[in-house]
Amino acid sequence: MKIIKDLPDKENYYMPAEYSPHYGCILIWPHRRDSWQNGAYKARQAFAELIKIISRSEKVIVCARYEDYDDARKALPDRVRVVEMSSDDSWARDVAPTFVTNGTEIRGIDWGFNAWGGLHDGLYFPWDKDNKMARKLCDLLDKDCYDQRDFVLEGGSIHTDGEGTLLTTEECLLGRGRNPDMSKQEIEEKLCRCLGVKKIIWLKRGIYHDETNGHIDNICAFVSPGEAVLAWTDDKNDPQYEISAECLEILESAVDAKGRRIKVHKLPLPSPVHITAEECMGLDDMDGEPTRIPGERLAASYVNFYISNKDVIVPQFGDENDKKAVEILSRLFPTRTVTGLSGSRDILIGGGNIHCITQQIPKWQEASV
Amino acid sequence: MKIIKDLPDKENYYMPAEYSPHYGCILIWPHRRDSWQNGAYKARQAFAELIKIISRSEKVIVCARYEDYDDARKALPDRVRVVEMSSDDSWARDVAPTFVTNGTEIRGIDWGFNAWGGLHDGLYFPWDKDNKMARKLCDLLDKDCYDQRDFVLEGGSIHTDGEGTLLTTEECLLGRGRNPDMSKQEIEEKLCRCLGVKKIIWLKRGIYHDETNGHIDNICAFVSPGEAVLAWTDDKNDPQYEISAECLEILESAVDAKGRRIKVHKLPLPSPVHITAEECMGLDDMDGEPTRIPGERLAASYVNFYISNKDVIVPQFGDENDKKAVEILSRLFPTRTVTGLSGSRDILIGGGNIHCITQQIPKWQEASV
Repeated sequence: MKIIKDLPDKENYYMPAEYSPHYGCILIWPHRRDSWQNGAYKARQAFAELIKIISRSEKVIVCARYEDYDDARKALPDRVRVVEMSSDDSWARDVAPTFVTNGTEIRGIDWGFNAWGGLHDGLYFPWDKDNKMARKLCDLLDKDCYDQRDFVLEGGSIHTDGEGTLLTTEECLLGRGRNPDMSKQEIEEKLCRCLGVKKIIWLKRGIYHDETNGHIDNICAFVSPGEAVLAWTDDKNDPQYEISAECLEILESAVDAKGRRIKVHKLPLPSPVHITAEECMGLDDMDGEPTRIPGERLAASYVNFYISNKDVIVPQFGDENDKKAVEILSRLFPTRTVTGLSGSRDILIGGGNIHCITQQIPKWQEASV
Repeated sequence: MKIIKDLPDKENYYMPAEYSPHYGCILIWPHRRDSWQNGAYKARQAFAELIKIISRSEKVIVCARYEDYDDARKALPDRVRVVEMSSDDSWARDVAPTFVTNGTEIRGIDWGFNAWGGLHDGLYFPWDKDNKMARKLCDLLDKDCYDQRDFVLEGGSIHTDGEGTLLTTEECLLGRGRNPDMSKQEIEEKLCRCLGVKKIIWLKRGIYHDETNGHIDNICAFVSPGEAVLAWTDDKNDPQYEISAECLEILESAVDAKGRRIKVHKLPLPSPVHITAEECMGLDDMDGEPTRIPGERLAASYVNFYISNKDVIVPQFGDENDKKAVEILSRLFPTRTVTGLSGSRDILIGGGNIHCITQQIPKWQEASV
C-alpha cells in the first residue's frame, strides 16, 4: 500500500456514485455496549439480516474485533469474509475509506475521524481505533491510500451522483467540530479535488435531532444523475418540516455539474420514533451517564438505504409509511429488488441506519465479483 | 470461507513442496517480550530484512497486533500487506494454515496448536490467539478451510517433496505433548490423508536442544524430489553427532513414494551457539522466570532456510560455515539466488529461525502474483 500525499484529482481519480457497479461492501460487527442494546445482541441480528441480502450480489467484508470474530463467523454466511480489525464502534460509512477510481483501478481516501465532533461535540472518546481503520482497510484490499487525515470528514456527510455533483450539509461540514479553521471555500476546494466533483449543493441542515450534526445520508440521496430523494413530512408542527422544506427549496433551485435541474422525489418520513425505557435499559451507561434517555427522538429516515449491485435495502420502522418508502424506491430503482429491513429499529437505536453501517467498494477492472 | 470436515484427500487436495510456485508468504510481526530481545526491536529489524527479500518475488502478508500495526507498516516496503491480527507469538510456520492444492485452487488446513506441547511441555500459556490464526488467515485469503483442530500439528514438523513423500520426526509427532492418544499408525494415516502423501520417512530426533521437540524443519529438508539436506557435524563429542548420524542412516536406507533412494547432502552446522548474559538481559521474564539462561545452547542450523519464488534465504551466525552453507545451497538451487540473512541470530534467540517464521501460500490458478 502506497500512502499518497497528492490529491486524487491529480491522477483523475473520482468518487463514483453508489449506484455504480460495486466490488463489494465493508461493515463492522457491532460490539459497543453503550451504542447497542443487550450487548449488541439485537444489532448483530439486524446486521446479519442486512449482510445476507448485500452478499447476494457483491463481496462483503465484515471487520470484527479479536473477541468477536467467532461470533461474527457463526452468524454470517460462508460467502462473507470476516477479518479481525479493532474498532471503537461500527459505522463503516464514516470510518472506512471513501473509495475513488480512475476507471480501471481504485484507491481509498483516509479522512480524519473524530467521532462526529471531537472534543467539541463528539459522541465518544477515544476514537483512535476507528481513525486507523481506513488505512488498514486499504492495506487489506491491497489498494493505495490517500492520506487526508488532516481533514475531518465522514462518508455519511457526502453523496455524489458520479457525474461531478456532490450533496452535503452546512450543519455538518461547516460546524465547529470538524475543520473549524477552514473556510467554506477551502472546504469546497478540498472536496472538489478529493472527490473529483465540480459542483457542491449545500443543504442547510440534516434530519432533526440527528447526532451526526446532520449527515446528508439520512436526509437526501441521489438515486440517479439528476434525481434525488428527500426525507419529507407534511406535518407543519414537526420541527422536521421546516428543515425539509428548506432543503426542497435549495434542491429545486439548484443546477448540477452538468447543468441539469435536480428532480426531487419526496420520501415520506415515518411518524416520529422515540426510544423506550426498556430499550434504554439495554444500553450500558457511558462515563457513568446514559447515552440515551427514555422518550428521546431518534433520527429515523427511509433515506438511509444502501444500494448494492442488485438490491436496495431500506429501513423499516413498523410505520404506515414503511410500504410507501419501498414502493417509491422500487419505482426509482427499476433494475434492483427493494427490500425493507425488519431489524432497522435495532440499528437506529445505535444512532444511524443501513447506509451508516455500510461502505461500498467500487468495482475495479481486475476485480472478480 | 467454508469450514470443511472431510479430509483433503477426498477431493485430491495435497500439500505442494515449498519449491513449487508460490502466491506468497505469511509472517507475523514479533512482539512478545519474553521471546524477543529489547521489546522485539532487534527481531523486527531481522524480520524486515527477510521480508524485503521474500517480497521481491512473491506477495507477503504480515500479521500485526493492533498496537503494532503502525510500526510494522513503517518498517516494511509498500508492496507488503500488513493486516491486523492478534497473536501470542510470531511463528507463522506453526500457526498459519498448511495450504493444500488440487492443482487449480488452494485451501488451508487449520491444525490444533498448543504452543509445542500444551500443558505437558508447551512453551507458553495461553495460546488461544495463535490457535485461531489459521482459520482467520483462510478467511482473509477468501479460501476454504479444513477443520483439523482436534489434531495437534505445527507446520515446522513436516516437510513434503510434493510427490507423495513426507519427512517428519518421532521425537515431535509421537511425543506426549501433541496427540498422546493416537498410535503411530493413526498419525501416519492422518498425515497421508490430510497432506496427500503415500510415504512417511520418520527420523528419530531433531536438532539437539531444540525446544520444539525436534521439528524436522531445523534438521532436514527436501531441496527437490529425491534430494534432501541434512544438518551435519563431524564433531563426535557434540551430542548432535549421534542424532545427525542416525538421521543419515535412516535417510540413506529409505525409499520415497516414487521408489527413489534419497540423495542426502550434508549441510554443516555452525559451531555451537550459546546465548550471552547480555542477550538474556534483553528478554523479559515470563511468569516470574527467565525463558533463557546465559550460556544456554541455541538450536542454530542452516537447514532453517525459506525458499521463495526466486530466492533462498539462509540463516547466518557469524560462523566460518556461513559461507559454506550458502555455497552448498546455491548449487542445490541453481535457479534461485541464495542469500544469507545477517539478522538470523536475533531470530534464533526467539527459538527458531527463518523457516519457522514463514509460511508459504502456494499459487492457485486465478492468482496474480
